[in-house]
Amino acid sequence: MIRQDAYPVDPWCVRETRLDLDLLAAAESLFALSNGHLGLRGNLDEGEPHGLPGTYLNSVHEQRRLPYAEAGYGYPESGQSVVNVPNGKLIRILVDDEPFDIRYGDLHSHTRTLDLRTGILTREAEWCAPSGAAIRLRSERLVSLTQRAIAAVRLSVEPVDRTVQVVLQSELVANEQLPPASEDPRAAADLEAPFVPEDLLRSEMAVTLVHSTKRSGLRVGSGIDHEVEGPDDLSTKVEAFPDLARITVTTELEPGESVCLTKYLAYGWSSRRTVPAVRDQVAAALTAARHHGWDALCAQQATALAEFWAGADVQVDGDEELQQAVRFALFQILQASARAERRPIAAKGLTGTGYDGHTFWDTEVFVLPMLTYTVPHAAADALRWRLDTLPMAQERAQVLGLRGAAFPWRTITGAECSAYWPAGTAAFHINSAIAMAADRQAWASGDEQFDREVAVPLLVETARLWVSLGHHDAKDGFRIDGVTGPDEYSAVADNNVYTNLTARQNLRAAVRACGHWPEQAAALNVGDDEIAAWSSAADLMTVPWDDQLGVHPQAEAFTRHAEFDFDGLGPDAYPLMLSVPYVQLYRTQVLKQADLVLAMHLCGDEFTPEQKRSNFEYYERRTVRDSSLSAATQAVLAAEVGHLDLALDYTAESALVDLRDLASNTANGLHLAAMAGTWIALVAGFGGLRDHGRSLRFAPQLPRGLTGLGFALVHQGARLQVAIADGEATYTLESGQVALTLAHHGEEFTLEPKTSASKPLPERRQLPPPEQPPGRAPTRRVGAAAPQCPVTENTAS
Amino acid sequence: MIRQDAYPVDPWCVRETRLDLDLLAAAESLFALSNGHLGLRGNLDEGEPHGLPGTYLNSVHEQRRLPYAEAGYGYPESGQSVVNVPNGKLIRILVDDEPFDIRYGDLHSHTRTLDLRTGILTREAEWCAPSGAAIRLRSERLVSLTQRAIAAVRLSVEPVDRTVQVVLQSELVANEQLPPASEDPRAAADLEAPFVPEDLLRSEMAVTLVHSTKRSGLRVGSGIDHEVEGPDDLSTKVEAFPDLARITVTTELEPGESVCLTKYLAYGWSSRRTVPAVRDQVAAALTAARHHGWDALCAQQATALAEFWAGADVQVDGDEELQQAVRFALFQILQASARAERRPIAAKGLTGTGYDGHTFWDTEVFVLPMLTYTVPHAAADALRWRLDTLPMAQERAQVLGLRGAAFPWRTITGAECSAYWPAGTAAFHINSAIAMAADRQAWASGDEQFDREVAVPLLVETARLWVSLGHHDAKDGFRIDGVTGPDEYSAVADNNVYTNLTARQNLRAAVRACGHWPEQAAALNVGDDEIAAWSSAADLMTVPWDDQLGVHPQAEAFTRHAEFDFDGLGPDAYPLMLSVPYVQLYRTQVLKQADLVLAMHLCGDEFTPEQKRSNFEYYERRTVRDSSLSAATQAVLAAEVGHLDLALDYTAESALVDLRDLASNTANGLHLAAMAGTWIALVAGFGGLRDHGRSLRFAPQLPRGLTGLGFALVHQGARLQVAIADGEATYTLESGQVALTLAHHGEEFTLEPKTSASKPLPERRQLPPPEQPPGRAPTRRVGAAAPQCPVTENTAS
Repeated sequence: MIRQDAYPVDPWCVRETRLDLDLLAAAESLFALSNGHLGLRGNLDEGEPHGLPGTYLNSVHEQRRLPYAEAGYGYPESGQSVVNVPNGKLIRILVDDEPFDIRYGDLHSHTRTLDLRTGILTREAEWCAPSGAAIRLRSERLVSLTQRAIAAVRLSVEPVDRTVQVVLQSELVANEQLPPASEDPRAAADLEAPFVPEDLLRSEMAVTLVHSTKRSGLRVGSGIDHEVEGPDDLSTKVEAFPDLARITVTTELEPGESVCLTKYLAYGWSSRRTVPAVRDQVAAALTAARHHGWDALCAQQATALAEFWAGADVQVDGDEELQQAVRFALFQILQASARAERRPIAAKGLTGTGYDGHTFWDTEVFVLPMLTYTVPHAAADALRWRLDTLPMAQERAQVLGLRGAAFPWRTITGAECSAYWPAGTAAFHINSAIAMAADRQAWASGDEQFDREVAVPLLVETARLWVSLGHHDAKDGFRIDGVTGPDEYSAVADNNVYTNLTARQNLRAAVRACGHWPEQAAALNVGDDEIAAWSSAADLMTVPWDDQLGVHPQAEAFTRHAEFDFDGLGPDAYPLMLSVPYVQLYRTQVLKQADLVLAMHLCGDEFTPEQKRSNFEYYERRTVRDSSLSAATQAVLAAEVGHLDLALDYTAESALVDLRDLASNTANGLHLAAMAGTWIALVAGFGGLRDHGRSLRFAPQLPRGLTGLGFALVHQGARLQVAIADGEATYTLESGQVALTLAHHGEEFTLEPKTSASKPLPERRQLPPPEQPPGRAPTRRVGAAAPQCPVTENTAS
Repeated sequence: MIRQDAYPVDPWCVRETRLDLDLLAAAESLFALSNGHLGLRGNLDEGEPHGLPGTYLNSVHEQRRLPYAEAGYGYPESGQSVVNVPNGKLIRILVDDEPFDIRYGDLHSHTRTLDLRTGILTREAEWCAPSGAAIRLRSERLVSLTQRAIAAVRLSVEPVDRTVQVVLQSELVANEQLPPASEDPRAAADLEAPFVPEDLLRSEMAVTLVHSTKRSGLRVGSGIDHEVEGPDDLSTKVEAFPDLARITVTTELEPGESVCLTKYLAYGWSSRRTVPAVRDQVAAALTAARHHGWDALCAQQATALAEFWAGADVQVDGDEELQQAVRFALFQILQASARAERRPIAAKGLTGTGYDGHTFWDTEVFVLPMLTYTVPHAAADALRWRLDTLPMAQERAQVLGLRGAAFPWRTITGAECSAYWPAGTAAFHINSAIAMAADRQAWASGDEQFDREVAVPLLVETARLWVSLGHHDAKDGFRIDGVTGPDEYSAVADNNVYTNLTARQNLRAAVRACGHWPEQAAALNVGDDEIAAWSSAADLMTVPWDDQLGVHPQAEAFTRHAEFDFDGLGPDAYPLMLSVPYVQLYRTQVLKQADLVLAMHLCGDEFTPEQKRSNFEYYERRTVRDSSLSAATQAVLAAEVGHLDLALDYTAESALVDLRDLASNTANGLHLAAMAGTWIALVAGFGGLRDHGRSLRFAPQLPRGLTGLGFALVHQGARLQVAIADGEATYTLESGQVALTLAHHGEEFTLEPKTSASKPLPERRQLPPPEQPPGRAPTRRVGAAAPQCPVTENTAS
């Protein structure tokens, strides 16, 4: 875990005040820079020590064999793994012939600062070599949000107190040697040195390299160019080899002198274009970068971020740690998505190799809602990527003996890569996640073209899947059997409530879309019979209910299953999937993550308030949160049913998962869905935002730990600002041409453009805290503001 | 498929009248010789052509990695595969310098005959080399039932019409080159050349070799010795290398002369003993074999088989094909078990490498019932082997978070080797299969020592498993959730009726055994509370029932699942697991094999006759018999509920699965459980034998295709002969000291030693034939006696 004092709380920065080698890999993830197309892990400029060197291009991957000891029909044969493309951020430094390596000599100071408003990662260090030669180093790094192919580094070195010889080796390294992966050595072998060199070109201070991957057949161009400032006697040397470009700057620095290297990095890739085309694309990007220059790139970055914050910032009053965390989260989601441009948003963004760089349902369920309301074009792009993969999803449905489209549980290209079908192929709810994200995006953006071109085909093909997957039963209605819901500690169950309710939304949205776009529907061969079948399946959808316990079983018969034996667990039992076999997890009442509770968030209209409360408490006792996706959803429902303190705890757990490395795996990359979950916990939890049924409703309330909360939403092209403080919520329609109909705690009202409305908050409800599984109460923060003891209080609003 | 005219019907032989290279591998399985300890596939003497060369020693295996693309806790890391031990049956023949190879030159005749009464495989061939030199060859081969370590071959060659030079190379080859296995090349690599040479010893005409396996650490000794008869100028040469022993006999034969080589093979293995100990054990066996000599070995073999047939033969009148098939089946089961001696009986016996040489539940459910009533010592040995593996099963239960013992789904040594847990670990019914086989064996043999020493611990530890696996539910009783029943097209379901009912039997048998053996129970720490818990779980066991349809769902909610879309299948859809993904199979009402129907056989008292009939017809429509285990069980219930013609068809399908290669995989080894199923279909189907509840009941009835049926059972040390013909059944207690209480069609009667009782058969019922899935009616035989058209007839008994 990362201690708070190493990363002091600051509203607009994440600052590391000392270098902890044990947390180096986690810090590389936290300080990763990306624009959604190109990502650089926060590796030290000089390359070593490192946790995991990482430079990634969205969708550049290698194929690897998926081995099965006992294979089955329809199992994917080939997996996909994100690969480390040529590393251009590397600048090795020699000080009087001693490599600058903070593991040797004396590191007098070392700070790294990620500024969330400039988008620049700054590093400052003072180091004394074993020889006694001391230097000051400063580096700045950015991955441009405005120039998709470009990153830049500016690094300067100066002597502290005596003349030193400094050699800078600015490199571009392909097939970089990586630490051994812990997984199956045979699969890892497929990923070792994935690139075959195809071309190199050297000109003055620039080198471009072109490589291809061995199996996936992707061509990657990479290039570096440089500007150097320093003493007159400074000399430079440029070398290029198939897997290495090296520009060497040699100089002798008196105290007071310095050498400053500005390095531009450019990348491009294609599965189709030729070697010269890819090479020239990189050269063009490099030329453009030098044309703009370092200062302009920095200025553009700050401008882009200012615009982002104006529309996306969340203000949290009374909890500085949470304020910092939510801004860090928003920044990272922007980094993962801003320039993804019809490529997937991976679970880890471009910050590490966790989950092989795959995208999952959590992008649609957690990340896209935030983007839809803050960076709508990024959400639209992500869904257009799904549309681009529709033929693969249709083919997959065919292999599975189903109609319509079956989107992959995990993928980079759109092809299914899940090798364990009970928690992969069987998790058909990925399809309603995609469909509903598209429907939300169409409605919230008011973009009719998107609705017609993207939402309609996605809704139609997923609706077709659902009606072929389920069937009508004389007794029960429309059943969907043998599927896996969000909770991965259950699988292949009948009538998972989450799946059935989101499938119902999906079907109804498809009916609406086809009614609204008859020509588009006709082009997809949707007839009246088919629409009637969708309506009928939606209307008759089975929703199991346990009358005896007065709760919804997560899936049919779930509440009749044995209770999980928490008392029999050893001290290091969590996460349970590493110490308990599936055969035990699946047949007992233990949840990895919110499932029915997520249904109560996304399909809230399907439940009465009493059901929500009893369901919440029932599942709260059985949910171990071994998934980082869970806390945010629990926060939303905790807030809704009246556990505001608990909601704040869960919000903080979601917010701090990476900044405090709560899951001990930030090293592999950031938990983007948990970050988006922080926004959801605040906006849907304390703001009470609900948008199912195509209406925008709020139910704001503040926990005792917060004095105010403000957030902005882009809706139908207008910007709505919501400010909650001092017992009231103020809704301001800052831009736009049309009035919005909103609801505040169930009361509808209309807000005209450029007007505000203030509404009183209701009395704060605080129910007695519910129980969690033994030892699984939310991670408490040091010095957290929320009170620890159960109380029920009434506060006048 | 093998055509009948290539294997003519004969009551006591299986004869191949012509060599079909496409069916060579299948014939190697059919002509495999074994005694349960040592097995030789029916490879041609000269080694090539071959389908799969195979020499196996029970339990001699190599470990191989089990790869998982996505691993889970408790997955076995290492698999086990039977390996080809040094091949000693090889005798290469050169005729005037031309290798005898039936693919070249002209094969004028070739017959192979397996005599079920002598146990000898005889081969006769006349071949003309491309050079024009012609020979007659005759070989005989046996694997001794009386000398466990010994096999022998006698081979003679004579010229047809002119002088030929003949060279015989009698070999013993280790690490024999095998055809590439079709599975994962990485796993196959673990099994390539599994042996490391450790020792060789040459003396006169004998060589012994000692090898060890690389990973599993088993030491295997093998040896050959020879006697030669031939012309005086015959010369011999003996060579020994680490992986090869070769005795070469060279001679020139005039017409009328011949050379005859008698070859003795001996094998031994150990995981503990030293090189000299293993080497000397083989040498001793070889010496003993030569001491007895060929003729004595043959005589002993015939005597052993005569004794077997006296106690085990089944006479089928009116259906010669079935008569042959059931004798072949009985012979093969004897071969698989006779000398297994506390080693497992594998699904393929020692006839091939199918299923990696593993044993499964079908040994206990199909093979052991037959052995218990015909070769009781072999059944007892197989269960003592299970007892020997109890510590591994207890450890496995612990890994799974359960109490008692969890026996492996598939194994050679007793360690779980199943790499797909939904159809492996979750199939907990392996445990009731073992427990009930032990209980049956204890009762039917009347062996109190076996009951105390073997049955009690097996029953206690499996009972402990069931009560820890299931739980009491206020509404439903005792539930066993998330398990897989016999049908492998469903998995991880709740309250599988077969599992619950056999668990109930298991629990009640444990209660009985502990009551009967209080000291043994106390030694296992069984207290009164525990016994009460077993009784309570048994009494309150959930047995789902579909009131609407009037049938038992195979597992909870099964009958609410969608019907399988048989109409959507392509022409080559079967077996379905190779063309339909599990995600479809599991959620629809399609069965690979009898499941609920097997419960109605083994736990018949739990169902009313009406339930049996409606259940049978319900599942008949949904069972595709992609498992060779299914037909026999369907035969038993078809006979019981009144579909006698169908029962005969299923009996024949089970009986002919290998003799006609109905499943197209006899090449990998014989289907031992289907063979035992033939016995079950006849004895339990038409004989109506039921033994649950510790009583021996019969309900004989003959289908129109049979005129008589006779079989013997060893029961409580006595031999009971049952003869069904001419409208009555005659029960004769041929030996023994005590009277037996039997039942005939529900009417109890007592049979004194050495007396007979005849009872009339009831009227033959013949219900209208039920439906099978489209295209899945039982395989009809050419010229089958059973009528094809549905009729209902009454025949006076």
